[in-house]
This record gives sequence, structure tokens and C-alpha cells, in this order.
Amino acid sequence: MSTAIDTVTALLADYCAHLDADRLETWCELFAGESSYRIVPRENRVQSLPAAILHLANRNMIRDRITVLRTAAVYNIHVDRHMVSAIRVLASDARSAKYEANFCVYQSDQEGRTKLFCTGMYEGEVSLAPQPLFVRQEVIVDTFSIPALLAVPI
Amino acid sequence: MSTAIDTVTALLADYCAHLDADRLETWCELFAGESSYRIVPRENRVQSLPAAILHLANRNMIRDRITVLRTAAVYNIHVDRHMVSAIRVLASDARSAKYEANFCVYQSDQEGRTKLFCTGMYEGEVSLAPQPLFVRQEVIVDTFSIPALLAVPI
Amino acid sequence: MSTAIDTVTALLADYCAHLDADRLETWCELFAGESSYRIVPRENRVQSLPAAILHLANRNMIRDRITVLRTAAVYNIHVDRHMVSAIRVLASDARSAKYEANFCVYQSDQEGRTKLFCTGMYEGEVSLAPQPLFVRQEVIVDTFSIPALLAVPI
Repeated sequence: MSTAIDTVTALLADYCAHLDADRLETWCELFAGESSYRIVPRENRVQSLPAAILHLANRNMIRDRITVLRTAAVYNIHVDRHMVSAIRVLASDARSAKYEANFCVYQSDQEGRTKLFCTGMYEGEVSLAPQPLFVRQEVIVDTFSIPALLAVPI
Repeated sequence: MSTAIDTVTALLADYCAHLDADRLETWCELFAGESSYRIVPRENRVQSLPAAILHLANRNMIRDRITVLRTAAVYNIHVDRHMVSAIRVLASDARSAKYEANFCVYQSDQEGRTKLFCTGMYEGEVSLAPQPLFVRQEVIVDTFSIPALLAVPI
Repeated sequence: MSTAIDTVTALLADYCAHLDADRLETWCELFAGESSYRIVPRENRVQSLPAAILHLANRNMIRDRITVLRTAAVYNIHVDRHMVSAIRVLASDARSAKYEANFCVYQSDQEGRTKLFCTGMYEGEVSLAPQPLFVRQEVIVDTFSIPALLAVPI
């Protein structure tokens, strides 16, 4: 039987792989119907400011966002590469787990040059049964002075 | 029952999380009473030179170091983000495990700009029972030409 | 009993550790006799172009490559540091597992300055029994405009 940490680790690996391969529609399906996705600057969070860079309040909103991205961006000029580390399960029962993890994202352009895009922390809740899905996903970014932050999900 | 690699992985995740959230006092409590914390440049280690950048020979010394940091640094102008990877258990029995792992640390400033701070390798020993704690932690840094290396633990 | 993901994770940790410690001969022994090692630019792969930057078709060719590196490079002026993340087992049975994972590599020079070297994805197949070994290892690099790409395995 898988433990909560194994399930969260595997779900985060899928999350990274789908984003990096530009499978955004498949990435959406990692979220529960009733779920939220937020990007918040670390500074705001420490000061308990409510303002989010992006706040999608359920899976339909996440799907709509992807549709907009597909329509707006004729081609994606960057390739993302996500790294996730220091994954911690803070609380769990048979049905769900609260977790946090560190991440960093690199971007490579079409000339094959790679740069650090941003670092930060994921914090959220994952349903474990009947199926592992994100119920709440907060992306707390350390790097908020980056251009085109909202071009793709982080 | 958790395996040695699971226990080491979880302890390292706590280690990273406490450092990155500036919970330095909680980070201290991950060390056994009789424990050591050292930062060594990779070059010295390869040549078996004894000189360490920092050598704290037990938990009280680690605590003192944190107190000094809290007093000296009025505010922490950088946010750290630790990534740890390639964790290996080299030897273990019921009570303890010897391990090594790769790490990198990013720092973000108050304008939300992020830079690579340093990379290197952790090498040490962890007690598994009665409680997972660091008994010996060596931080072998690849990056030794960085300003303010000693401002915070790595 | 270890699961496929645990075995793949441990084998990749050995892979990174041997490369970073310049134990290239030991690294070779992580490959099965009948195995392949390829480095491919991401761009080529997406377009299904066959050209590889490096293609070694069995372990003897991998060993030969290391011998050439040892002879050609009088001393290695860079230290590598590999990070691997988002490890996924895509298919597995009792004997083998297909996997993919993200990676990034940093290089430090003799003055202790560290730079991002490249990012990308590992994709391959691992034998699980009788012994964990790489049967196929593809290194798909996002960063293909880097000098001296072929100096050492990635």
C-alpha cells in the first residue's frame, strides 16, 4: 500500500511532467472538480495580504485558463523544466493529505539557452482516495519580478 | 515500517523547509545533543585538508550560532530555497544510517530576484531510533567564492 | 520489497553520485552489457529527427568513451552537480521498468564559481532483476548551445 508521501510525490511528478511537455489539458485533469489553483508572491503571503497573481477557484476555471493560453499564444517560445524537492506531508488521513514542497523552474529558448525562471514553494491538499488529485494548490513564488509570469502555469 | 532512505529523505525535507522558512531554532532541534555540523569547501576535502569554513561540535554550539545570527542580522535580506536530490543511504542498521545527497540553494532578494547561491553535497549520519536526528552533518560546498557565505546555515 | 519507483530512484541517485565524484568507471557498471546511452537535443526529438549528439550502443562503447575521456582530458577543470526530480515509472513488470525524470546539472570551476550547465529529461528503461541496471538511457537536453557539451556524460 502506498503511503501519503509516495502518492503526493507521484502526483507532483505527473504535475511537472505534464507542464514541461506542454500537456496542459492533461495537467488540468490532475485537479479535482472542486479545487483551487493560486499563484501568490511570497511577500504577500508572509504579510497575510490576500492578493494573488492568479486565482482559479475550480477546475472549470483552470480549463478555461488553458483554453485562453492555447488561443493567445500561437507558439510557446519557452520550454519549462520543473524540479521539485523537499516534499513534506504535514497532515494526512485515509482520504487526503496536506503537503508542501520546494520547486524551481528553468526555461530554455529555441536557441537552446537555459535560464532560471523562478523558485518557490508549493503548498496544498491532495485527495488520496478514490483517486489522487489536487484539491488545493498554492504556488508561492520567491521570484516575482519576472516578465510574463502568467504565460503558463507554474 | 519506514525504510532508512524514507527516514533520511523526510529528515532532509524538514531540514530544508525549516531553513527556507527562517525557522532556525526549529532547525537546531533536528540535531542530536551530541552532533556536529560542518561546512567544508570541496577542494579542501578532496585534498584531505582539515580546515572547515564552519565547525560546530555539538547542538549547543549550533544553538549559539543561531542566537548570534538572530542578534547580528537585524533582518534577513535574502530568502533561501533549498533543493536536495540524489539521496543515497551508504550504510544503515536499526539505529542509524550514513547518507549523502546533492543540494543547491537559491536566494531571492526583496525585489523578488532569484539567483543561484551555491551547490554541493551533504554527507552525514542520521539516528533512526528512537527519533530521526542528525548526528553528523557535513556540507561540502562546490561554490566557495560567494559573499557572506556564513550568514545562514546551508 | 522495493517498488519499481524506489529502485529507479536509487539507481538514478547512484548515477548522479558517480558522475559528480568523477567515478566514471563505476558509473559504466550501472549499465547492462546490452544497453544504450544517447544524448539527444530536445528539438530533434520533438521533430522525430534521428540525429543524436552522442550514441553509444552497448556497455563496451560506453567504457571506451570513458577511456578516451580519461586519456584526452589531463584534468577535469569542472565539478558537476546533478539534480534529478519528478521521477516517474511509466510501465513496469517484475523484470524491468520504463521511466522518465527531469534533471539539471551545475558546474563549478576551480575558483569555486558555479553555473547552470544544462537542464533536460532522462528517459529510459531499467532492469529490476536480478540487479538494477540501465538497459536504455536517453538524455534529452533542453540546453544545446553549450560549449564542450560532450566533455563528460550527463
